[in-house]
Amino acid sequence: MSRTQPDLEAFSAAAIAIVGEDAVLSRGHLDEYTDPFPVGDPDEFATAAVVRPGSVEEVSQIVRSAGEHGIHLWPISRGRNNGYGGRSPRTPGSVVIDLSRMNRVLEIDPVGGTALVEPGVSFAEFAEALRASGAPFWASVPDLSWGSVIGNALERGLGYTEYGDHNSQVCGMEVVLADGEVVRTGMGAMSGSRTWQLYRGGFGPAVDGIFAQSNLGIVTKMGLWLMPAPQAWAAVDIGVSEFDDLEQLIDTVRPLKFNGTIQSTVVIGDPIGVAAFSGPRSTWQEDHGTLAPGVQERIMAHYGVGRWTMTFAVYGDDELVAARVAAVRRAFSASLPLATVTVTNYAGDASTDDIAPHHRVRAGIPGMYAEKLSYWFGGRGGHVSFAPVLPIDGAKALAQVRELQERFNAAGFDYCGAFTITGRSMVHVTEVLFDRDDAEQVARGRTLVRDLIGTVADDGYGEYRGHVAFMDRIAGTFDWNDGALGRLHTRLKDALDPHGVLAPGKQGVWPSAMQDHRETPSR
Amino acid sequence: MSRTQPDLEAFSAAAIAIVGEDAVLSRGHLDEYTDPFPVGDPDEFATAAVVRPGSVEEVSQIVRSAGEHGIHLWPISRGRNNGYGGRSPRTPGSVVIDLSRMNRVLEIDPVGGTALVEPGVSFAEFAEALRASGAPFWASVPDLSWGSVIGNALERGLGYTEYGDHNSQVCGMEVVLADGEVVRTGMGAMSGSRTWQLYRGGFGPAVDGIFAQSNLGIVTKMGLWLMPAPQAWAAVDIGVSEFDDLEQLIDTVRPLKFNGTIQSTVVIGDPIGVAAFSGPRSTWQEDHGTLAPGVQERIMAHYGVGRWTMTFAVYGDDELVAARVAAVRRAFSASLPLATVTVTNYAGDASTDDIAPHHRVRAGIPGMYAEKLSYWFGGRGGHVSFAPVLPIDGAKALAQVRELQERFNAAGFDYCGAFTITGRSMVHVTEVLFDRDDAEQVARGRTLVRDLIGTVADDGYGEYRGHVAFMDRIAGTFDWNDGALGRLHTRLKDALDPHGVLAPGKQGVWPSAMQDHRETPSR
Repeated sequence: MSRTQPDLEAFSAAAIAIVGEDAVLSRGHLDEYTDPFPVGDPDEFATAAVVRPGSVEEVSQIVRSAGEHGIHLWPISRGRNNGYGGRSPRTPGSVVIDLSRMNRVLEIDPVGGTALVEPGVSFAEFAEALRASGAPFWASVPDLSWGSVIGNALERGLGYTEYGDHNSQVCGMEVVLADGEVVRTGMGAMSGSRTWQLYRGGFGPAVDGIFAQSNLGIVTKMGLWLMPAPQAWAAVDIGVSEFDDLEQLIDTVRPLKFNGTIQSTVVIGDPIGVAAFSGPRSTWQEDHGTLAPGVQERIMAHYGVGRWTMTFAVYGDDELVAARVAAVRRAFSASLPLATVTVTNYAGDASTDDIAPHHRVRAGIPGMYAEKLSYWFGGRGGHVSFAPVLPIDGAKALAQVRELQERFNAAGFDYCGAFTITGRSMVHVTEVLFDRDDAEQVARGRTLVRDLIGTVADDGYGEYRGHVAFMDRIAGTFDWNDGALGRLHTRLKDALDPHGVLAPGKQGVWPSAMQDHRETPSR
Repeated sequence: MSRTQPDLEAFSAAAIAIVGEDAVLSRGHLDEYTDPFPVGDPDEFATAAVVRPGSVEEVSQIVRSAGEHGIHLWPISRGRNNGYGGRSPRTPGSVVIDLSRMNRVLEIDPVGGTALVEPGVSFAEFAEALRASGAPFWASVPDLSWGSVIGNALERGLGYTEYGDHNSQVCGMEVVLADGEVVRTGMGAMSGSRTWQLYRGGFGPAVDGIFAQSNLGIVTKMGLWLMPAPQAWAAVDIGVSEFDDLEQLIDTVRPLKFNGTIQSTVVIGDPIGVAAFSGPRSTWQEDHGTLAPGVQERIMAHYGVGRWTMTFAVYGDDELVAARVAAVRRAFSASLPLATVTVTNYAGDASTDDIAPHHRVRAGIPGMYAEKLSYWFGGRGGHVSFAPVLPIDGAKALAQVRELQERFNAAGFDYCGAFTITGRSMVHVTEVLFDRDDAEQVARGRTLVRDLIGTVADDGYGEYRGHVAFMDRIAGTFDWNDGALGRLHTRLKDALDPHGVLAPGKQGVWPSAMQDHRETPSR
């Protein structure tokens, strides 16, 4: 059973019959479907057409039809995975299946504290629906609220409340497989189930995980656990003046995060990030060379931030919030007596206007806080993310910052880094910021990221996410037992989608029949 | 490629060559490998032989050899899944592969707060290794500490601390697949990884979930997140005198559990459970008929317990513990003013002797607290569990208790029920307690459980676990879209283990080649 020769024309005709003419876009109408921040020739990851189904049934039919006509589909929820390829398919010539029309909040359970949403629901839409429902629960949002709640959770994205590890809040899915079969996971696999959004385990093997960062199915519904709206909360901002203070910042927050004193995602950022979130680099230095001595200090003084700034939030009733804050103050005054600890107390029902803009994500209030980041170098801005996962260990973090700073600077980029702490690890999020019209700079940035993937792998660290241009490269660093996990991924792909109907190459997972498409892995 | 004709003799010879003569048990030496509480003829789920490998390499070789010789293997970690079949294979004539010799605690990370263990490590052994390491973290243990840490987590078992939902504390696995391939999941898929036990996601699809309640692989190593030892904690016992108070108990604790005021697993039990944990039924009533009016009351008076008793624990520094307890007292005095709320405060480093025996599991201290439960009806005792998952909703719980109580009594059994609350749901754990030498009583119990599976499914509820005798029956109630999840399970099974080398039929998952072994599903 070999793959049918691709027939885009026949597929498009079939797609129009399924979803209607308005919901199929073809060449000449795909401007919105290119990577906004391409790391090279945009045609490298070009889309051939777009189909916008309006229901699970249509998704299932489109998938079946794609299989019949030899078409590769690249599913996007809302397609805001910018910095990782945006809406671009890994395999050029794929048809984007855009789920943004499926944007219903299907259910909010005000007792169980759960929701059931479709992939087109944005963070902003979800937060508004939740507010309007009156249910005493909060959303969790990332910096930019235009993205899909489902897409972000599947890609292991983060928000900033106690429920900021979005993937870990998932409970129950509906998934369309590559042959059009529709499956509900967990307790949803029982007809008439009353616990689909309440219990994750189900009976037997739990398949939910295989649909994260995945090309094994298209998630058409997802259940989520919601954070109870607290009576009170406090945002905490801690600034330190010395570069090396990073070590103590991390080592001091670790036990407070582990024992639940601090509930939210913890973020540590540097001044370049603060400046880049607010305006272009030219504010500080006209030429594109390494930032001159003193610029960092001017930025710190201008924004009143430290060399590192740590932010987080605590939640509870008044008494619990006070006890948490007291524990935080005790710990940091012991380890970093010169640190500036600023505590801002809020009532649980504080109105958005009463909350400082940079604290709003701590209450799950949507915004577009980080939008300007890409335009640091001016021109048509762009960025590509490089984000390895580290232990929550100050010395290791400091060593990696030094290494990356040196490498970024040597390649002509500013190191712009942050740490996000959830669970037992932290993501060291760095952004290579570029002017997308400066082809030489873009190429330099791509080489830098490519090389860094190997550098950190040699240190024992892997990335948690990757641009389509680097997916094979990153997957190649997962090389234990000669790449055993990759082989298992391939076997699952072969079992469920041998011809690569769904997103072949996503996260480096290809069916056996398409192994020759893989970029040669190497460390 | 059809399955080889089974050749137990050739396999046994090969197994002896791999693991040594002492580590292969055959007919006549299998007494320890029968179900201690069979729900019928023990031969229904009989074991043909036992192999006890001592290393991952040996597991891999045994699995390969089983495939060559057409043998079905039934993997057990320590084989204490009593009430669910114990060590008995679903497919009679299978060879038990007993992993109890692989009992090393491979790593305890005192900074990251994680451990890496082998399947033979018991809860008692793990707690002792953790204590001896001096790392400031606690174990989480179930009622009976003889079982496997890994086995319990894979079967979605529960403990009683903040980390009591054992499956959700898993981070990273090593798995031997049915063809002998060894895979490491998550960040462990990178050679030299330094974050295997720290970050769950990895890169690409997360496969860990498919190895829970599974026959898709044998887990040979597992990473676990550990609970930080608190400075202080308090055990809270709440008793109510009226049957209908169950509703308010549940509805009052729900928001306290959701918002993290209460961190531990919450348990609600009835007097029969308390009595059965302590001694035989004959203490209270000689005949096996329905318990006479007044017996419940005598039990309550004797043990000083309420009609329902809710127990949980809170953790933190002194101030946080006090704030949590205050919030608990406020909530229950408002909703259940007549409830008895008993708070017992402990220092985080309290010695075992200073902790009341029934509170010790709240500090992860191992014991054998529930051992006597099975002997309620005297003789060679036994029990079979029936445990549907419910919303944390008082009215729904009360309705189900009434229904089950009636059904248990009508079948000649005492309703002995408890609720365990974690996450967004609760398991309604009931036990059919029987005298295994009373064949008629055993048969009645089996019919009762079989019927109840259908009854609760009609109400929209599913079981979270099941005895080997009921696995197909339960899987059959997961019938959405004509059993789509079951078909997906079969496809995964076919991809990884088409001939059923590993535990065919476990949790109702059979390869296509063995579908005729399935008990006809029906609601």
